[in-house]
Amino acid sequence: MSSGRLLAIDWGTSSLRGALIDADGHVIDQRHSDQGILSVPANGFRAVFDQNFGDWACSDVRLGLIAGMAGSRQGWQEAAYCACPAGFDSIATQLTWLADPALPLPLPLAIVPGLSCLHPSPVSASFSIPDVMRGEETQVLGAMRLAGIDSGSFVLPGTHSKWVEVEQGRIVRFRTSMTGELYALLSRHSLLARTIDPAADFDAQAFGEGVAVARAGADLLHLLFGTRTLSLFASRSGAQLNSYLSGLLIGEEIRSREPLPESLTLIGSPSLLGPYGEALARCGVRTRSFDNQASWAGLHAIASATTIPRQSIGNNAS
Amino acid sequence: MSSGRLLAIDWGTSSLRGALIDADGHVIDQRHSDQGILSVPANGFRAVFDQNFGDWACSDVRLGLIAGMAGSRQGWQEAAYCACPAGFDSIATQLTWLADPALPLPLPLAIVPGLSCLHPSPVSASFSIPDVMRGEETQVLGAMRLAGIDSGSFVLPGTHSKWVEVEQGRIVRFRTSMTGELYALLSRHSLLARTIDPAADFDAQAFGEGVAVARAGADLLHLLFGTRTLSLFASRSGAQLNSYLSGLLIGEEIRSREPLPESLTLIGSPSLLGPYGEALARCGVRTRSFDNQASWAGLHAIASATTIPRQSIGNNAS
Repeated sequence: MSSGRLLAIDWGTSSLRGALIDADGHVIDQRHSDQGILSVPANGFRAVFDQNFGDWACSDVRLGLIAGMAGSRQGWQEAAYCACPAGFDSIATQLTWLADPALPLPLPLAIVPGLSCLHPSPVSASFSIPDVMRGEETQVLGAMRLAGIDSGSFVLPGTHSKWVEVEQGRIVRFRTSMTGELYALLSRHSLLARTIDPAADFDAQAFGEGVAVARAGADLLHLLFGTRTLSLFASRSGAQLNSYLSGLLIGEEIRSREPLPESLTLIGSPSLLGPYGEALARCGVRTRSFDNQASWAGLHAIASATTIPRQSIGNNAS
Repeated sequence: MSSGRLLAIDWGTSSLRGALIDADGHVIDQRHSDQGILSVPANGFRAVFDQNFGDWACSDVRLGLIAGMAGSRQGWQEAAYCACPAGFDSIATQLTWLADPALPLPLPLAIVPGLSCLHPSPVSASFSIPDVMRGEETQVLGAMRLAGIDSGSFVLPGTHSKWVEVEQGRIVRFRTSMTGELYALLSRHSLLARTIDPAADFDAQAFGEGVAVARAGADLLHLLFGTRTLSLFASRSGAQLNSYLSGLLIGEEIRSREPLPESLTLIGSPSLLGPYGEALARCGVRTRSFDNQASWAGLHAIASATTIPRQSIGNNAS
């Protein structure tokens, strides 16, 4: 099952990343473009795939796997969510295999399902709030492999931050916060946009104040307005207010997850992991970090558990 | 001090309202335009004033008073905030009198100061978060007069909702929440904008679910993302999701003010007071309501406590 190379793709909302991986899981080559799904026209996914990965796909590659928003309703083809708890095995058996009758694919190519879970509402037994992820499940599974662990708590900061619980190799539950999206909205479109400077350098003291106030206050709607009044009265600079706002939102996200575990694994880009690591350290939580390369380890592990269906094997011969 | 008519103006961010009030406080005439301060060019306030109220100002009017954002840095002239606690008397002695050497004003005309207070931070004695209002203080004082009370709790829903505490005729403290602004940002610019219908009719059941979930959850960042997933999984309509989002935000505002008083006075436009009244009733709080006419009672009471300075009296003679 593990002979031959893997074409691993993480196709997100705003970016497209690919890696050529050998049978032992080593990354041979990588590519990156800004052709996230939002920039791809309807029915344009095959062309973007060929343009970015056509040469790799026609070489000695056993299988291609795509994780991320390419499996959403707005993506290449909708891939049903896999319900938690879920590990490598259940994900590998619920791949969505792609086919293109007009122009046969040069290799067996599948989309990895996202995960879903249900949060029971504390106010009504009949009202549950669903939660979803696409792509993060692959990064968590990859980080588990890289760290050599099969249980723990993971945080994936971003537009929609995920806190993920893993037990005995399976993702058992997760929770999404709209932290990054709210930061972008507030810093660009709100009253605060007049006073904060989103391009400013990180100010550790102002960030720390924001984290501490949010954790103590449990009153985000009020504290957001306070970001404005601090600029009126307290002579804070646009740079300080930017870091303070970031601290407020990350602090609120952390507060809502208390009590916190003793240690957490962070996955994401260094620019996001830095502030989260600092905020969590202030809360006494030990962290270790993996960058987005965790996707490759996750896709390699899923590929190792995958049986290619007869029909898709035919892709190679066509 | 109370003879002669009052020209009362509430000049806000997006609207301009004026009333001609007799010595006994009765409203003789009213006008309304959308010439809020954001639509007035720099140095254009005198012209907009003359255009809207020039005929009133030249009639038998003793005094003009302007409340609201016209006293902000972006307004006609910045009026310093009056620190809480503050009642009619302290506000009346801190008016900012306008003068126009190039074209003398036809009447004594002053801007009512906004109020400020400081929220001590729970995390550091040296870090306080200021709070401010402009215009709402006048509405609260007016509602007190109309209701014949000198103590109580008031809520003024809006872009920046205010919860105000009054003791013995003075506003002693208040707290602002960015509720309305966040609703506008989320319904227009966020991921949620794709699924909710901001123009839809109010759905009481969905609104009530949002209020209940927010009050129980204390996790707004997570619940906002849940508004999206409810549309993916639970077949909610755009109208239901709009009311649910509104309920989440108002419910979060209410949760952050708990424990709630037994009764509250609401001030604002009926379209906003309806949902707040419904949400508070679900929390067991009795409410009574005043519309924006409360401004006129407040300005009349401030006028009654005002001594017109000698220099401004001269306006009448010029």
